[in-house]
Amino acid sequence: MTPTFTITARDPASRARAGIVRTPHGTVQTPVFMPVGTRATVKALSPHELREHGAEILLGNTYHLYLQPGHELIARRGGLHRFMSWDGPILTDSGGFQVFSLVYGGIADEVKGRRPQHPTRLTDMVKVTENAVLFKSYLDGSRHVFTPERSIQVQHGLGADIILCFDELPPFRAGYDYTSASLERTHRWAARCLAAHQARDPSALPNPGQLLFGIVHGGVFPDLRRASAEHIGAMGFDGLCIGGSLGGDKAQMYEVVAMTVPHLPDGLARHLLGVGDVDDLLEGVARGIDMFDCVSPTRLGRHGAALVRDQARRWRVNLQNAALREDDGPLQAGCECYCCRNFSRAYIHHLYRAKELLGVRLVSLHNVAFLLALMAEVRAALAAGSFGALYEAWLGKPLTADA
Amino acid sequence: MTPTFTITARDPASRARAGIVRTPHGTVQTPVFMPVGTRATVKALSPHELREHGAEILLGNTYHLYLQPGHELIARRGGLHRFMSWDGPILTDSGGFQVFSLVYGGIADEVKGRRPQHPTRLTDMVKVTENAVLFKSYLDGSRHVFTPERSIQVQHGLGADIILCFDELPPFRAGYDYTSASLERTHRWAARCLAAHQARDPSALPNPGQLLFGIVHGGVFPDLRRASAEHIGAMGFDGLCIGGSLGGDKAQMYEVVAMTVPHLPDGLARHLLGVGDVDDLLEGVARGIDMFDCVSPTRLGRHGAALVRDQARRWRVNLQNAALREDDGPLQAGCECYCCRNFSRAYIHHLYRAKELLGVRLVSLHNVAFLLALMAEVRAALAAGSFGALYEAWLGKPLTADA
Repeated sequence: MTPTFTITARDPASRARAGIVRTPHGTVQTPVFMPVGTRATVKALSPHELREHGAEILLGNTYHLYLQPGHELIARRGGLHRFMSWDGPILTDSGGFQVFSLVYGGIADEVKGRRPQHPTRLTDMVKVTENAVLFKSYLDGSRHVFTPERSIQVQHGLGADIILCFDELPPFRAGYDYTSASLERTHRWAARCLAAHQARDPSALPNPGQLLFGIVHGGVFPDLRRASAEHIGAMGFDGLCIGGSLGGDKAQMYEVVAMTVPHLPDGLARHLLGVGDVDDLLEGVARGIDMFDCVSPTRLGRHGAALVRDQARRWRVNLQNAALREDDGPLQAGCECYCCRNFSRAYIHHLYRAKELLGVRLVSLHNVAFLLALMAEVRAALAAGSFGALYEAWLGKPLTADA
Repeated sequence: MTPTFTITARDPASRARAGIVRTPHGTVQTPVFMPVGTRATVKALSPHELREHGAEILLGNTYHLYLQPGHELIARRGGLHRFMSWDGPILTDSGGFQVFSLVYGGIADEVKGRRPQHPTRLTDMVKVTENAVLFKSYLDGSRHVFTPERSIQVQHGLGADIILCFDELPPFRAGYDYTSASLERTHRWAARCLAAHQARDPSALPNPGQLLFGIVHGGVFPDLRRASAEHIGAMGFDGLCIGGSLGGDKAQMYEVVAMTVPHLPDGLARHLLGVGDVDDLLEGVARGIDMFDCVSPTRLGRHGAALVRDQARRWRVNLQNAALREDDGPLQAGCECYCCRNFSRAYIHHLYRAKELLGVRLVSLHNVAFLLALMAEVRAALAAGSFGALYEAWLGKPLTADA
């Protein structure tokens, strides 16, 4: 049988590697950034322009799609691919992350110190038992139950090419004991997800060849991360994700990745969930990550920021800035996206000032294309043996062995 | 010199005709519908997809562009074409209509009986003198003055291919005397616009070969419409618009067109300003109109309605309608737009329910493409001598001589 993941190049000075992931809807070249289409749409963008701009795989959110329009409706339409008119690979998460993160705030909030005031307290929105997670819909407050089996069943209905195990996201700054107990439960849930996936009736599903990825937890604790990496890594999954708490800032996130990756099997693709800043992508690749996803490029577009090659400004330009008013240049010189090939900063500035939808659309496209182009550069550098130089050119510091 | 307008076909049973309008940025085949890009963008749509879907000419609004980002800024960018990345023909209105309609409500409101409560009272937002219109900005309340010369100067800066004379829009249900006096003033303003246009310094302008269209007024009064048609029609404009009050309902609007067109020179293109419902387009063509513009297709898209071939439902389907929830068909069977080639009603319904921007984008595109395709059908029928059959197929009644 053809392996799911083949490594095609390695950086001698770091853990970075390039590879190919094979899915029922085609191959994905890694390291890869996947745009997020939470509700079966990457916000404001069409699937065909995503493809034209180099997107190879999209991510959909099971939690949102389960609630609206429902996985059964999507299954009756032939699955998510046909429903949203994207014939390339799709990954769905398990729903677990969203069930919890809508209460706690997401990974991005955590890393950026934007957690809610009482983040360790579970509200009445969500309850966890050994068997299941009970939660209320963010749409209408209706009550729902997700078990590991139910999450897999929902993902079977959605029909993504890569589906994820159902996991608990421990409360932020959960101590060692809670994280350890949660990890054990997530391991038991992983076994239940695997069993449910193996017991599926392929003839009844829109995408019978779905791959199942496991999720490694353990918070910020090296021994728990190692234990989880070794445990989940040995279970027979088609690939692996690094999930759970990634710490309180970017430095800690990189540490968590660095303490986890060496204990993962080399031959499985590794996905760092929910991360997509420019520095995070490069630091993640240097530490051996193959796959990334993040809502940031489209969210930044809606909030009026464009990605640019300017580390001093955190790779962002504020489109409301009056300095852009008569700037005839593109958002980013040399960028080959539709926005930069056709429109000036002055025009984009005007669109944002006038609150015109085309502004959000063009900048969302640029931002996604920017990260896709960055990852194409990363893959080319890995193939050419020049990843260290690329890393230094973007981050202004040499690639060191501890990366 | 090549004439601006050439008639290529005539319907023997009505006043309908097909033709070609020549502009500095290429030709336009008539009868034509032009999508409206009020603020240098057809809302939510890219100029390149408009071109791909058959748009030949766009309309921009001088009032809005003058206030934001300003005609001088656009002129410094090389004009509206380069600013918005549309290299085909553009028409700008004079600003007059918007100055008044933002007080009175627009033609569409009038025809649909949605006029404000005290529509004959000018508010402090706008004042008219023999020389000028004084108005306050809808953006910030700042005070501005438009004279006929100023409107032409602003339109020179924007650089559209077709520009319009500055006119007064009389208050709704203005009596004969007010309408008559207003008409006389609009005629004097037309002469001033023509003089200002002829006195321009082409070397200083982004688009030196701009065409100037006159605007026929006269409200609902046959003798005033005739007098205005003959007066404006003889002044030497490159084309003509039918403006001013078109009455209180569609039937009256068709009467106004029918009482005006016979008195216009045959050899000039005729634009019915601000009209774009399916029946209005067909009835307008039958009465000898060559050009139409309307915000309706993109406005309907934002408000959740798609255009379909269903006269009984006023050619609209409500995208929030639960009947669409599992409808795997396209918005309109046989429609060749990007939306209908790739997405189902079920998916579009989901996007609207989830308030996803892609929904507005796809349906706006469909609605514009729908009207562009209708006009392509009209042109083909005129060329083939089958306009009467097309009219009857769409409107369910024979084309009669009084149309």
